[in-house]
Amino acid sequence: MHPTFALPPSFLGGCAASPETAEFCIAGIPFDLGVTNRSGARDGPHAVRRASRMLADGANPVGWVDPQVLSVADLGDFTLALGDIAASLEQIERQATGCRHLLAIGGDHTVTLALLRALTKRIGPVGLIHFDAHSDTWPDNFGQPLAHGSPFFHALEEGLVDPRRMVQVGIRSPMPKAVHDWTVSRGVTIITAEEAHIQGPAAVAERILTVIGEHQAYLSFDIDAIDPGQAPGTGTPEIGGLFTWQVMAILQRLKTVRFAGMDVVEVAPAYDVSEITALAAATILWQYLTLQARS
Amino acid sequence: MHPTFALPPSFLGGCAASPETAEFCIAGIPFDLGVTNRSGARDGPHAVRRASRMLADGANPVGWVDPQVLSVADLGDFTLALGDIAASLEQIERQATGCRHLLAIGGDHTVTLALLRALTKRIGPVGLIHFDAHSDTWPDNFGQPLAHGSPFFHALEEGLVDPRRMVQVGIRSPMPKAVHDWTVSRGVTIITAEEAHIQGPAAVAERILTVIGEHQAYLSFDIDAIDPGQAPGTGTPEIGGLFTWQVMAILQRLKTVRFAGMDVVEVAPAYDVSEITALAAATILWQYLTLQARS
Amino acid sequence: MHPTFALPPSFLGGCAASPETAEFCIAGIPFDLGVTNRSGARDGPHAVRRASRMLADGANPVGWVDPQVLSVADLGDFTLALGDIAASLEQIERQATGCRHLLAIGGDHTVTLALLRALTKRIGPVGLIHFDAHSDTWPDNFGQPLAHGSPFFHALEEGLVDPRRMVQVGIRSPMPKAVHDWTVSRGVTIITAEEAHIQGPAAVAERILTVIGEHQAYLSFDIDAIDPGQAPGTGTPEIGGLFTWQVMAILQRLKTVRFAGMDVVEVAPAYDVSEITALAAATILWQYLTLQARS
Amino acid sequence: MHPTFALPPSFLGGCAASPETAEFCIAGIPFDLGVTNRSGARDGPHAVRRASRMLADGANPVGWVDPQVLSVADLGDFTLALGDIAASLEQIERQATGCRHLLAIGGDHTVTLALLRALTKRIGPVGLIHFDAHSDTWPDNFGQPLAHGSPFFHALEEGLVDPRRMVQVGIRSPMPKAVHDWTVSRGVTIITAEEAHIQGPAAVAERILTVIGEHQAYLSFDIDAIDPGQAPGTGTPEIGGLFTWQVMAILQRLKTVRFAGMDVVEVAPAYDVSEITALAAATILWQYLTLQARS
Amino acid sequence: MHPTFALPPSFLGGCAASPETAEFCIAGIPFDLGVTNRSGARDGPHAVRRASRMLADGANPVGWVDPQVLSVADLGDFTLALGDIAASLEQIERQATGCRHLLAIGGDHTVTLALLRALTKRIGPVGLIHFDAHSDTWPDNFGQPLAHGSPFFHALEEGLVDPRRMVQVGIRSPMPKAVHDWTVSRGVTIITAEEAHIQGPAAVAERILTVIGEHQAYLSFDIDAIDPGQAPGTGTPEIGGLFTWQVMAILQRLKTVRFAGMDVVEVAPAYDVSEITALAAATILWQYLTLQARS
Amino acid sequence: MHPTFALPPSFLGGCAASPETAEFCIAGIPFDLGVTNRSGARDGPHAVRRASRMLADGANPVGWVDPQVLSVADLGDFTLALGDIAASLEQIERQATGCRHLLAIGGDHTVTLALLRALTKRIGPVGLIHFDAHSDTWPDNFGQPLAHGSPFFHALEEGLVDPRRMVQVGIRSPMPKAVHDWTVSRGVTIITAEEAHIQGPAAVAERILTVIGEHQAYLSFDIDAIDPGQAPGTGTPEIGGLFTWQVMAILQRLKTVRFAGMDVVEVAPAYDVSEITALAAATILWQYLTLQARS
Repeated sequence: MHPTFALPPSFLGGCAASPETAEFCIAGIPFDLGVTNRSGARDGPHAVRRASRMLADGANPVGWVDPQVLSVADLGDFTLALGDIAASLEQIERQATGCRHLLAIGGDHTVTLALLRALTKRIGPVGLIHFDAHSDTWPDNFGQPLAHGSPFFHALEEGLVDPRRMVQVGIRSPMPKAVHDWTVSRGVTIITAEEAHIQGPAAVAERILTVIGEHQAYLSFDIDAIDPGQAPGTGTPEIGGLFTWQVMAILQRLKTVRFAGMDVVEVAPAYDVSEITALAAATILWQYLTLQARS
Repeated sequence: MHPTFALPPSFLGGCAASPETAEFCIAGIPFDLGVTNRSGARDGPHAVRRASRMLADGANPVGWVDPQVLSVADLGDFTLALGDIAASLEQIERQATGCRHLLAIGGDHTVTLALLRALTKRIGPVGLIHFDAHSDTWPDNFGQPLAHGSPFFHALEEGLVDPRRMVQVGIRSPMPKAVHDWTVSRGVTIITAEEAHIQGPAAVAERILTVIGEHQAYLSFDIDAIDPGQAPGTGTPEIGGLFTWQVMAILQRLKTVRFAGMDVVEVAPAYDVSEITALAAATILWQYLTLQARS
Repeated sequence: MHPTFALPPSFLGGCAASPETAEFCIAGIPFDLGVTNRSGARDGPHAVRRASRMLADGANPVGWVDPQVLSVADLGDFTLALGDIAASLEQIERQATGCRHLLAIGGDHTVTLALLRALTKRIGPVGLIHFDAHSDTWPDNFGQPLAHGSPFFHALEEGLVDPRRMVQVGIRSPMPKAVHDWTVSRGVTIITAEEAHIQGPAAVAERILTVIGEHQAYLSFDIDAIDPGQAPGTGTPEIGGLFTWQVMAILQRLKTVRFAGMDVVEVAPAYDVSEITALAAATILWQYLTLQARS
Repeated sequence: MHPTFALPPSFLGGCAASPETAEFCIAGIPFDLGVTNRSGARDGPHAVRRASRMLADGANPVGWVDPQVLSVADLGDFTLALGDIAASLEQIERQATGCRHLLAIGGDHTVTLALLRALTKRIGPVGLIHFDAHSDTWPDNFGQPLAHGSPFFHALEEGLVDPRRMVQVGIRSPMPKAVHDWTVSRGVTIITAEEAHIQGPAAVAERILTVIGEHQAYLSFDIDAIDPGQAPGTGTPEIGGLFTWQVMAILQRLKTVRFAGMDVVEVAPAYDVSEITALAAATILWQYLTLQARS
Repeated sequence: MHPTFALPPSFLGGCAASPETAEFCIAGIPFDLGVTNRSGARDGPHAVRRASRMLADGANPVGWVDPQVLSVADLGDFTLALGDIAASLEQIERQATGCRHLLAIGGDHTVTLALLRALTKRIGPVGLIHFDAHSDTWPDNFGQPLAHGSPFFHALEEGLVDPRRMVQVGIRSPMPKAVHDWTVSRGVTIITAEEAHIQGPAAVAERILTVIGEHQAYLSFDIDAIDPGQAPGTGTPEIGGLFTWQVMAILQRLKTVRFAGMDVVEVAPAYDVSEITALAAATILWQYLTLQARS
Repeated sequence: MHPTFALPPSFLGGCAASPETAEFCIAGIPFDLGVTNRSGARDGPHAVRRASRMLADGANPVGWVDPQVLSVADLGDFTLALGDIAASLEQIERQATGCRHLLAIGGDHTVTLALLRALTKRIGPVGLIHFDAHSDTWPDNFGQPLAHGSPFFHALEEGLVDPRRMVQVGIRSPMPKAVHDWTVSRGVTIITAEEAHIQGPAAVAERILTVIGEHQAYLSFDIDAIDPGQAPGTGTPEIGGLFTWQVMAILQRLKTVRFAGMDVVEVAPAYDVSEITALAAATILWQYLTLQARS
C-alpha cells in the first residue's frame, strides 16, 4: 500500500471503476474564462485531486463508512474550447450528459450552468444547495452574461432549478440591491454568513432540510463560501466567511437529502497556501461521497 | 465599467472628489519606523488600496447602502521624513489637520498619535474605539517613546482621548502588569480577545456603545486584533485573535456612534497571503464608510 | 534590552539556566523520519524558538506571571541517528532521561514514544492530555511500526500511559474503524474537534480535568490539532480543526493538573506562512510554562 | 519628494502629461483570455507599474538621460470585453488607435495583434523586434486562432509586419517543425536563446540592427524570453532563457532603431517572487523610454 | 487535444505504452530518508510530472524530434518501505530490475545506488555522467552509510561504475579534502562549476565524451548541480551553480553516448518557486528522451 | 556530530571562541531604519546565520582550507537604539571598536559608516572593495543624510576611505549624474555590472588588486550586487546583476589583499526564496574567512 504522499494522481489515488458501469463519476473542469477578478481556477482539478491523497487512509469518522467502497470512476478532465466561453459550456454539457451521477471539480462557477443543463435534461428541475460568498444571480458580469457571477440567474431563468427548493449559504459580498431583491423575489432562501455563524451548523442544516424536503437536489459549493483564512486559494475572496468545521457539520447533517450531483468550484491554487484550500475542496467531495455511501 | 481586477489604484478604484470639498478624505501613511518586530507596514497603503477593488461592485448587504455614494477624496500618501520618527509625526499631523474627516491607512500604529493630535486640536478630546492585540500604552518601547506600542500612553497623557470613553477590543499579548494596571487605572475599558470570543459580537458592540455613548469617537483598528490565520500580514501577530466575521458584526452594530475619524494600521504586505490581510483592512474601511453613509 | 527581533535564538531569547540545576529543560528534536505525508518537521525546533521571540516582552495576561521567572535551560537540539528511526528513538530516550522536567519541541510525533519511555522509567505510568487531529494509535503506518501515527499504540501497549487517564482532543481525521474501536476499548476518552467546537473550551477543560484528576500527566500537543488556516505548517493537515483561542482557553484552565512534561510536535516550517504555525507552538510552550509558574 | 516606496501608482510614479499632447502614452491591458497554460497576466499592468517605483530616482547610467524628461501620459488600463477575446481585441485596437506612440503593458501576448493592427493602420507595415521563448506563429492554439501563441501568424498573414524586417530573440520552446519552417520560409530571422548566450549581446544587437535597418520598428517583449530564474512570474516558462543583463545590453545598443511603439507582455504576478519579474518588465519599459530620450 | 494545463498527470501527459513492451520506462521514487539537510524530495516525482505538461506541445527544436514518438511507459511511483532506508533500497532495486531502460524521478540521491545495482546486474559496470554540486562520495553521512551523500562511494566500492569512465560536473560544495582525494585517486574526472562556467558547454561536453567514449553510460542528474536561482527547490543548495542553458547545451552534445538509463533527483517542491525547479528536471528528462529518439 | 539541519544557530553552528581572545569576531546588526524602499534587513543576521549551516561540513574546495580552523567568536547581535538612526550608529561604532577583526552581518548599508568609523579610528583610512548595485554616495536620501544610500559619501567626506584605493563592483542602478560624477571625481574606480559580465571575473579581480595594492582594505558587500534572480531577498533590487559564481571567482582571487574587516548587508529575508539570498551572504562570509585562513 502506498503512503499518502505516493498515491496515484486520481481522486483519493483511486476511483478506477469503469465510466460505463460506475455509479459515480468524478471529472475536472479546468475552465476559468468567466472569472471577474483573479484568474487561475483552471488549475483547481489538479490541486484538488492531489490534496485528496490525505483522505485515502481510512473511513470517515462521522458514520464510519469509507467512501472508497463506492463504485467511482475518475474520468480525468473534460475537454474545453480554449478561449471560448459559450463553446466550452456546450462541451461541458455534452460530456456531463453521459454521467449517471457526476461530481465535478471546477474551474470557475460558470461551469455549473452547463452541469445543471445536462442534469435537468435527464431528471427535470432540481433543488439546489448553494454554498457561496456571492449569490451568483447577476444577469451579467461587466457585460458578459456567461460568467461566474451569473450561473444561477440563468439556471432560474431557464427553469433548471426550483427557486422554492433553492437555498444559499454563506452569502456576504457587496452586491447591487436589485440583484438581491430579484433573487429573493423568486423564492430563494438566503442564509448569510453572519446568520450561519450566529445560528450554528445544526440550525443551518435544519433550514436547508426544510427548503429541500424530499426533492432531488444538487450541491454547488463555491470554495469562497469558506473564510479566506481557511481558503485563500480563490479568485474573489470575501472576509467573514464560514469555517470548515461548520461546513462539515452542516454537510454531515444532510443525510436525508436525495442528491443528484454536485460540484466544488473556484479553487485557484496559485493563491493557495500549503494546499489548504484544495484540501478543503477535496474533503467536501469526500464528505459528499460519504453521504452517498451511508444512504 | 472596469471589472474589479482592472480598477484604478485608488481606494475602491475611485474616491476622486476634490480634497477641498470632499466630506471624507482617505490618505496612506507609509511609515514603519516605530515597529518593534517585523517591519514592512510602509507598504500597507498600497496593498489596502489594491485589495479594495474587490469591494467596488455593489452595496453593503448590511443596510443596503453603497459607500461610493459618499463624497470621498483619496489624497494618495502623506509625505514623511525618511528615517526620522519625530519629524514624520509632525508632518503627518500637519497634513491631517487640513482634512475634515480623515480615514488613514497605515503604516504602523505610531501614526495614530499624530492623527489624534491633529483631530483633537480641532474638536477636543475624543472617545476611542481601539481594536488591537496589544494595549499600546507602554510608556516606551525598548527605550523609544515614539514607537508603535506607545501611541495611547501619549494620547492619554496629552489628554487627546477621554479614558472613560476609551475601549480596547481584542487585547491578548504578553505585557508587563504595570502597563496593564496603569491603563485600567486611567479608566480604560478592556475587552480581551477571549471575552470577545465567549460573549459574542452583539454583546461586545453593546459594551462599546455603553462606553462611548453620545461622544464623538475615533476608531483605531490595528489589524493584529484579527487572528493571524486571517491576518498574517502584520508585524507583531498574536494567536487567539478575533475573527473577521466578529469584527464586521461588531462594527455594523455601531450605527449610533458619532465617528470623527479612523485609521487601520499595521498591514505588512510582505507577510500577507494572497492579500487576505489587506482585504480585511479594506473591508473595515469600507464598513466604516457604510456606517457614515447610513447616518 | 534587545527588541524582540534581535533576541538571541534560544527559547524566549533566554532560558540560560544550567542544565544541571534547571527546574525545566527545553530541547529540540529535529527528527522527521516517521512522517507519512509531507516531511519537514526536522526544522520545527529552529522555527519555534525563532517565533518565541514575540513572547519575551511581558507577563502572560492570564494570571499575570511571566514564565521567565522560572529556572529554564534551553539545551539546544538532541542528537539523532541520521536515517535510522530505531536508533534515533534510543538516542532521544537516553538524552531525555537526564532532564528533570522536559519540554520538547519536535520533530514528528514518533518522538513522543521515546520521551514517554524516558519519563515513565523515572515516575511510572502517566496520564496523557493529547491534542491532535489523529488518534495516533495505529499499530503501524504503511508497514512501519515506529512512525508518527503509532506512538500511543506503543505507549499503551508498553504501559507507559494509563488509558483511563488519557484524553484526546481535536480528533477528526479519516481512520480505520478498528483503530478507533481499539483505542476506545482501552478506556481512552476522545473529544472530537466538532465536540470541542460545539461544547466550548470551558466544557472541554472540565472533561480533561475529570479524566486526569490528581494523577501526574503529560501534555503531547500535535500542532495539527489546530485548524490548517491557523497552522498550515504541518505535514498531515485536516480541515475543521480547533482554533488557537480555544486551545489557549483550554490550557489556561488546566491549572490543577500535575504536569510532568510536555512536547509540541509536527511543526513543518516549509509549509508555514509568516511563521504563524511556529508562533502557535511557541505560545503553547509559553502557556505551559505559565501554568508551572502559577503553581 | 516621495521615497520610492511611497510613489503614486502610475508608471515611475508620474507620467502625468495630458494624453492629447503627450509624446508617449503608457497603457495597461489586463487581458489573459488567450493563455494556454497558467493564467494571471491580467494582473501584469498593476504589478509592473508598482515595480517601476524602483526606477524613479535618477538617470539611466547608460547614456545619462532620465526618461522622465519625456512627455509621457499614463492612461491607466484599457477597457476590455470580459470573457470575449474577439471583442476585447477590437476594443484594444480602437483605444490604441488614438495614441501617438504607445507603450503597452500586458496582458498576454494575444494583445499585440490588436496593437499592431492599430499601429499599422496609421503608418503601414513595420519591422518587428520580438523577444520571446516562443515563436508565437502557431496558426491556432488548441483550436483557438486568437490566442497568445498566434499573434505573429496573423500579423504576418495580415501584412502588418514585414517578415524580412522581423527578428525573434530567445526562442527555445518545443514547437512543431511545421510552425518553425513556416516562420523561416516567410523570411523571419530567428536567434535562439542558445545562440544569444554563445554569441553575446553585442553580436545579437548587431544582427538585430542588420535586420531592421532604417525601417520603423515595433518592439514586442514577452517576459518569458528571460530565464525563469529571473522571471518566474509568467504563464509558459521555458528553462535556458536570456539573462536580464544580456537583454539590457542588447536594448541599449539599439540606439539607431526608429521605434514606433512597444509592448511588454505575459507578466503573471501570482507566480512572481518579490516582484523581480515585474521589475524586469518595468526596467525594459524604462530602457525603451531612455532610447527615445537619447534620440 | 488538451491544452497543456489540462493534461493527464503522467509524464508529458502521456507515456501510456505497456510496461512489458515499452522501450523506455519512467518511474517516480518518492524517497527522502537519506537527506542531510532540508527534506521533501519525496514530492519530487509528482511535481516533475506536473511540470512536464509544458513540454508536451511540439518537437525539441534541437534536432526536431518529438520524444513522444518513443515507446514510453510511465509506471507511476515505486513502492517503498516507510522509514526504512535499507529495505527501501532493496524494493527500488527489485522494481528497477524489470525495466529495460529506466528513467527515474527522485527522491533523494540515495536511490541511485539501488538503481545502479539493478542496472549493472544486467549489463555490468557502466560509465557515469554525474551532474551535482556535491561529489556524493562520502563513505557515510553523519554516521549513516546509506544516505544521499554516499551513493557513488558505494557504487565505486561495489564496482558498479568504472571510475575511469566517470565524470562529475558542477561540483562546488564544501567537502573534506580526504573525500575529494579518494575520489580523484580512483580515477574519477571532476569538472567544477567554475570550470564549466569558464570553459563553456561545448568544451565540457567534449571532456565528457572523452571520458565516456564508447562505453555504456548512466546519467545521474542531481538538480542541485543547477544554480539555486534557477533551481531553488532542493535540499542542499550551493551558490555558484550551472545555468540551465549550459546544462541543455551540454546534454544535446552527448548524441554519441550509449545511454543505459538515467535519473534526475533531489527536487524538493516545498522549496520551489512557481515550479521552475520541477520544470528544469522535466526538461532534462525530455532532453534525454530526445537524445534516444535521435539515435 | 550534528547534521547540518540541526546545527546550533550561530555562524557555521560554531564560532564559540572567547571574544577577548578571538582573532575574528562575527556580529549581527539588525538595523533597517535607513532603507528607502522595502524594509526588513533587520532580520538579515538571523537568516544568514541559519543559512550558514549548509557550509559547516568540510573545507572550501578552493584552497582546501576549512575556515573553522580559525579562532572566531560569534558575538550575537549588537544592541541598537530603536527608531533612532544617529544613536544606533553611535552604538554600533562603540561596540565595533572593541573587535580586533570584525565580520558584520547587516542590517542595511547605513551601518557600514559606523563600522568604518570604528575601524579607521584604530588603523587609519582604508582601501575599500565595495560590491553593490548602487554607488551609495548620495549626499542624502530623500532628505535624510544617514541612510543606506549615503554611507560612502560620508566615509569619503570624513576621510575614512582613501578614494584612490576604493573600487565599486556591480554598479547599475538609476542615479543622478551629479552623484556619479562626484564619485568619479574623487578618484573612485567603478566597475559596472555590465563590465563585470563582459570582462569576466579574472579581469575584474585583477582590476581590484591593482586599485587596492598593498593597502589595508575593507570589504563591504551589499547583497544587491548580485542579480535579483539569485538574491531576491533584498530591499532595492536591480536587474542585470552579478552572478554568484562570478562573485566567488572574484573573491577567491583576492588572496593578496590585506583585509581589515568586512560586512555583508541588505539581506531582507521576507523577500527571500528558500533562503537562497541568505545562503549567498553566508557563503561570502565563509569565503572571506577562507581567505584569512589561507594567508
